[in-house]
Amino acid sequence: MEVYKNQESQNPLFQKIEQVRRRSNKIKDTHINLSHGSGGKAMRDLIDDVFVKSFDNPILSQLEDQASFDLANLAKLGNRLAFTTDSYVVDPLFFPGSDIGELAVNGTINDLAVSGAKPLYLTCSVILEEGLPVETLRRVAASMQAAAQKAGVQIVTGDTKVVNRGCADKLFINTAGIGIIPTGIDISPSNIQPGDVVIINGEIGNHGTAILIARGELELETDIESDCQPLHDLVSEIIKVCPEIHAMRDATRGGLATVLNEFALTANVGIRINENAIPVREEVNGMCEILGLDPLYLANEGKIVIVAPKEKAELILSTMKNHPTGKQASIIGEIIPTPPGIVLLKTAFGAERIVDMLVGDQLPRIC
Amino acid sequence: MEVYKNQESQNPLFQKIEQVRRRSNKIKDTHINLSHGSGGKAMRDLIDDVFVKSFDNPILSQLEDQASFDLANLAKLGNRLAFTTDSYVVDPLFFPGSDIGELAVNGTINDLAVSGAKPLYLTCSVILEEGLPVETLRRVAASMQAAAQKAGVQIVTGDTKVVNRGCADKLFINTAGIGIIPTGIDISPSNIQPGDVVIINGEIGNHGTAILIARGELELETDIESDCQPLHDLVSEIIKVCPEIHAMRDATRGGLATVLNEFALTANVGIRINENAIPVREEVNGMCEILGLDPLYLANEGKIVIVAPKEKAELILSTMKNHPTGKQASIIGEIIPTPPGIVLLKTAFGAERIVDMLVGDQLPRIC
Repeated sequence: MEVYKNQESQNPLFQKIEQVRRRSNKIKDTHINLSHGSGGKAMRDLIDDVFVKSFDNPILSQLEDQASFDLANLAKLGNRLAFTTDSYVVDPLFFPGSDIGELAVNGTINDLAVSGAKPLYLTCSVILEEGLPVETLRRVAASMQAAAQKAGVQIVTGDTKVVNRGCADKLFINTAGIGIIPTGIDISPSNIQPGDVVIINGEIGNHGTAILIARGELELETDIESDCQPLHDLVSEIIKVCPEIHAMRDATRGGLATVLNEFALTANVGIRINENAIPVREEVNGMCEILGLDPLYLANEGKIVIVAPKEKAELILSTMKNHPTGKQASIIGEIIPTPPGIVLLKTAFGAERIVDMLVGDQLPRIC
Repeated sequence: MEVYKNQESQNPLFQKIEQVRRRSNKIKDTHINLSHGSGGKAMRDLIDDVFVKSFDNPILSQLEDQASFDLANLAKLGNRLAFTTDSYVVDPLFFPGSDIGELAVNGTINDLAVSGAKPLYLTCSVILEEGLPVETLRRVAASMQAAAQKAGVQIVTGDTKVVNRGCADKLFINTAGIGIIPTGIDISPSNIQPGDVVIINGEIGNHGTAILIARGELELETDIESDCQPLHDLVSEIIKVCPEIHAMRDATRGGLATVLNEFALTANVGIRINENAIPVREEVNGMCEILGLDPLYLANEGKIVIVAPKEKAELILSTMKNHPTGKQASIIGEIIPTPPGIVLLKTAFGAERIVDMLVGDQLPRIC
């Protein structure tokens, strides 16, 4: 501080320095404007005041352009690094049972979890529309942090962009994630064998229904909430009893039907599922009938589809039923050698029909 | 295929199976529509036909929800994993010298490089506006792949979302990246010491100027192109001759001024730079004078600011000048003990002024 002692407080440079210093690092604006994406003072204040405060952890608060981790520590958890990304554009931002923030955390956690990985670190990159209330962003950041804490992951680095009014719809979030796959775990649809069973951890279609209801375009009232939840803990329990799981994927956009089609195509096998065995809430079925939708294609955000050797089916099922996110687990079908690449559904009435991949779009901006 | 032999070709189920099978996995539409974000057949075709084909690599083509890597292989390159993310919303998508695709690859490479990391793997997550020409997306994907190949990185996983017309502006890209920091490298602004020198690898303001010109709002014609380029190879050469580099950051949004302010604040030191030593093209200075802008705040996409011990300055400088991306490298200033947190500029006329953080926004959607 020697310079100060030698300077007159009347010195204009000294006065300017004092003025620069006195600036707080709190965001004063109530709404996002273009300066919050400028890279300058306003952006730094937004990041400090909203994200660093919410996500409160020592890696993020360094505000480096990247986070870094000791490889030796990672290697204690397994032998493979899993890496994933998803952007979230769900409309509306808040909906029964969840919101875009929780979704952005759990969605990426689940994309890691289905490889068997223990999710560890996430990024958070936001695209904000000019005019977004800062309070909305605070709510979303708080929700992200709550989800991250619940799942034991940290949000360690991020990015903030702002676009002019009308060039985005309120708020989009991208999360990327890394995790570690335990040694000996190799989960991939190419492992699927005829004779395997197909298991799901609970009701399908709740997320899609919750979003549809939240949009208010229907004169329907239900108490259905999104099933948005992290699945890594359930996966970790399953892997403990059956490390040789063949395939695992979370059924999000495109629903259960899409995951099964992907499995059938990749493994070049047929899949036969049993309509009676698939858990669907009565209200979801009802809404689908009214709107001409099919629950098999409705989005989920907390449903995992597992293909495993038949002899392990009961063990996996009982393990799942003992876990909070698997209470309604059910064996819903089996892998058959032919017709390869095709998913067949045995309907409640005993008929058989093809469950194709989703053609067209059922509900845009579902996640 | 036994089932076939036993089936009559008149069987309706068999006919439907054949019909499903005959579908190509090429995208037929010329413009993006909502079904390309549905999670179903149209999305898979878009991903196959545009992204998998462009990014052509065995990790991506598995189309798992995550990519995975052997930790032991990563550990051969160093002892720390670097992890970063950035979203790109630049307008226009194509501009002199570069485009959003190359920018999205090089930007994330550079965020890894400034930690000293060797960049290895990127993700690619796109948000598409309904109506975007598929041809535009193809051009951007090809550009991403060209940049990735040039830099020796692979795009290994991704995500595709589509929003209704008017809910985004054409195309936004998020890339996350991972890389490995060599053992013994610890680059952080907190290492900065009074007496250190500040070095930059070349001209500032070219990217900002190129974007401004490309927007066509000015009646100016110049041959200035964006400086968008990957910096990891230059960084790797610098680290070889000076592993004890103190701080390093690429000067993007907010320009050189913002990076220097971040350094000064984090290390609680003063920084004095010399206007005469900072490389700026005459046309950039001219445009800034006309528009009342300051080149110190203009965005760059291939400029690195380095703080290093004074005794290594000449060695680093000559190393940089021998590299294609450092030919115009220059020592532009020094670290001083006081006033802490403040950046001072000695102007071309010998006066001294404060270079504050960018307040307000100079140019929105610059990257």
